[in-house]
Amino acid sequence: MDQMTKTGLWVDAVQDIIAAGRRMDRFGWVPATAGNISRRLPDGRIAITRSGGHKGFLAPDGVIEVGMDGRAVQPGDRPSAETLLHCQLYAHDPAIGAVLHGHSVASTVLSMAAGDAITLSDYEVQKVFAGQTTHDASVRVPVFDNDQDIARLCTVVAPELGRMPAGYVIRGHGVYVWGATMDVALARLEGLEFLLACELEKRKLGR
Amino acid sequence: MDQMTKTGLWVDAVQDIIAAGRRMDRFGWVPATAGNISRRLPDGRIAITRSGGHKGFLAPDGVIEVGMDGRAVQPGDRPSAETLLHCQLYAHDPAIGAVLHGHSVASTVLSMAAGDAITLSDYEVQKVFAGQTTHDASVRVPVFDNDQDIARLCTVVAPELGRMPAGYVIRGHGVYVWGATMDVALARLEGLEFLLACELEKRKLGR
Amino acid sequence: MDQMTKTGLWVDAVQDIIAAGRRMDRFGWVPATAGNISRRLPDGRIAITRSGGHKGFLAPDGVIEVGMDGRAVQPGDRPSAETLLHCQLYAHDPAIGAVLHGHSVASTVLSMAAGDAITLSDYEVQKVFAGQTTHDASVRVPVFDNDQDIARLCTVVAPELGRMPAGYVIRGHGVYVWGATMDVALARLEGLEFLLACELEKRKLGR
Amino acid sequence: MDQMTKTGLWVDAVQDIIAAGRRMDRFGWVPATAGNISRRLPDGRIAITRSGGHKGFLAPDGVIEVGMDGRAVQPGDRPSAETLLHCQLYAHDPAIGAVLHGHSVASTVLSMAAGDAITLSDYEVQKVFAGQTTHDASVRVPVFDNDQDIARLCTVVAPELGRMPAGYVIRGHGVYVWGATMDVALARLEGLEFLLACELEKRKLGR
Repeated sequence: MDQMTKTGLWVDAVQDIIAAGRRMDRFGWVPATAGNISRRLPDGRIAITRSGGHKGFLAPDGVIEVGMDGRAVQPGDRPSAETLLHCQLYAHDPAIGAVLHGHSVASTVLSMAAGDAITLSDYEVQKVFAGQTTHDASVRVPVFDNDQDIARLCTVVAPELGRMPAGYVIRGHGVYVWGATMDVALARLEGLEFLLACELEKRKLGR
Repeated sequence: MDQMTKTGLWVDAVQDIIAAGRRMDRFGWVPATAGNISRRLPDGRIAITRSGGHKGFLAPDGVIEVGMDGRAVQPGDRPSAETLLHCQLYAHDPAIGAVLHGHSVASTVLSMAAGDAITLSDYEVQKVFAGQTTHDASVRVPVFDNDQDIARLCTVVAPELGRMPAGYVIRGHGVYVWGATMDVALARLEGLEFLLACELEKRKLGR
Repeated sequence: MDQMTKTGLWVDAVQDIIAAGRRMDRFGWVPATAGNISRRLPDGRIAITRSGGHKGFLAPDGVIEVGMDGRAVQPGDRPSAETLLHCQLYAHDPAIGAVLHGHSVASTVLSMAAGDAITLSDYEVQKVFAGQTTHDASVRVPVFDNDQDIARLCTVVAPELGRMPAGYVIRGHGVYVWGATMDVALARLEGLEFLLACELEKRKLGR
Repeated sequence: MDQMTKTGLWVDAVQDIIAAGRRMDRFGWVPATAGNISRRLPDGRIAITRSGGHKGFLAPDGVIEVGMDGRAVQPGDRPSAETLLHCQLYAHDPAIGAVLHGHSVASTVLSMAAGDAITLSDYEVQKVFAGQTTHDASVRVPVFDNDQDIARLCTVVAPELGRMPAGYVIRGHGVYVWGATMDVALARLEGLEFLLACELEKRKLGR
């Protein structure tokens, strides 16, 4: 692969990440400096948001390259600590091309009230998740306890890999979703957040 | 009708659909790839959103032509499964020129808590619905059980046709509204969603 | 006053009304074709939104001139039925230059749960209302029963004129606020709607 | 420092303040004429929003210079009464470069239901506040009673200075947050408001 192609792939990935950040900000899912966004390029490189900075106002230099070990390729670049959770997904499934991590009020509040999962049932929008063809089913969204030790958190997530069609939630923290492309990942994020917003309203109705 | 006129009518319909999608996205009523939007042209053709894709970011090729049987006119185009619900409305009433189907948190949650209808009473905004001239009345919004078999769902909707001034709701799924023009359909959608949002708040107040 | 000056004053008023409509739409306070907006010009003419049409997407011809009797100056122009409520305010106080009527979820729901008034106390934002200099006071917002006979509704509003620093609410319908200029009226509208949103949240907390 | 440099610093500060006002308006945190925004320049001057006017639509002349005593440098300029609360923070800590005061529904309602503090625990977003490195901790946000006598309010705030990593709340009024730069202050504001929104939802769930 020549340098021009490599550059073009990188620019495309950065544009995807910047646009995803703006979209997430529009819904209030990347408050302060929260959230992170990544894409795997066709050549295998991983582009991810730099640690810190607002994800709704990303500039191209807000995106850096990391290896599958979660470390920055360029010395001096500082990836988010949570980069390992992205890499874990890319390592698990070669079909994954984009990972999104956002913080919403609904996911934060519901996860703090939940046990080890939030179960979504009877919603048409469940069909946006991989392998779901009907509303007449239940989708289990695992809730993992938050942990500042991300390597340790990875070991808790690992056993569920391949069994989380709607992504997962870290308690008091936020959601992780993914897809083959950024568009698919964003659609699943919107779908999951829509359903969590519905669940939150249902609980306020006492149901 | 010459080809230039036919093309102009099509372009107008596509612009109406794209603008309606943006407006619905602004309110969060087309999360992920949810929702669908159609218009009947003066020459009788039906333009409707293609299956899949985000309705807030439609491009002209995201709109396809279907016949009254809900099938794509161009081989290879894939309409939404729910196209039949649009066609049913167009077949029922020749005055209908636009149909909107959106997913909101309020319609989803209320319909899952409701019986076979949601009744709206004493709201000024009820006057936006066909034939309503006062707030001092009740408008019945039927709630139909969701069904992945859309042809079967049509048979459940059929007996209510002509008696649904505010549209209808599919349980855990979303609303259907219509009007002579896209502007009228959008106004009724905004009116219905506003009133469902009010109903949801009322129930949280325990009323 | 020469024709050029008269035209300039009219254009200014129309621009104020169009901008106010966009702002109200941004908050969801003019759903469907709801709401109306007026301004009194320095030469005494009254410009008000035409009946029907979406107030968030006004064009200059969506604004018409009415007399103090609420009737259109140009034959064929159709003002909103509620124009009389605007004229009543202009007739009551020559210092009033703009009147806004919006529909919000909070004002609709609270007014349907209220008696003959909503009382706002201990909020800093109360200071936006005429004559209020401290949070340490109560502001009474009258709630009038809705009535499709606007002339009759005017007679119910009349005794309260001059005693409504924060405007008033029509039950299940919406708010009326006013000010010397459009900016003042908009600030009071934002202040009142902010406080009604707070009241609605308070009641959901059971307070 | 030459005049050109002084002018450039002022222009930068004004741009920061205008952009912050737009951002706060986007979330509904500066309703009506509420809120105020300031920045300390590298040369020690303090730029702050003029009293009155909407903070979401600031023009350069909506920002004035004040001294550390809270008084306008230019005779005739009228700073907000709350300017003293900004100056108190600048006097307390030379590292503070920006102060934000906003009004949100969540901060207003929660502070009216709270005692002398709101405590935030177990949220990942707490890490946006100075000195917080884990979610597994509690952050105390003091709530001070509102007072129209701002000098007296300063004496109530004073004992807590240096012990408020997340800012503070004035009851029924709004939040104060700060940071070395406007970006840091805005991130903390978004973080605090996000967490107050979570707390409000939690309480509606009865937790």
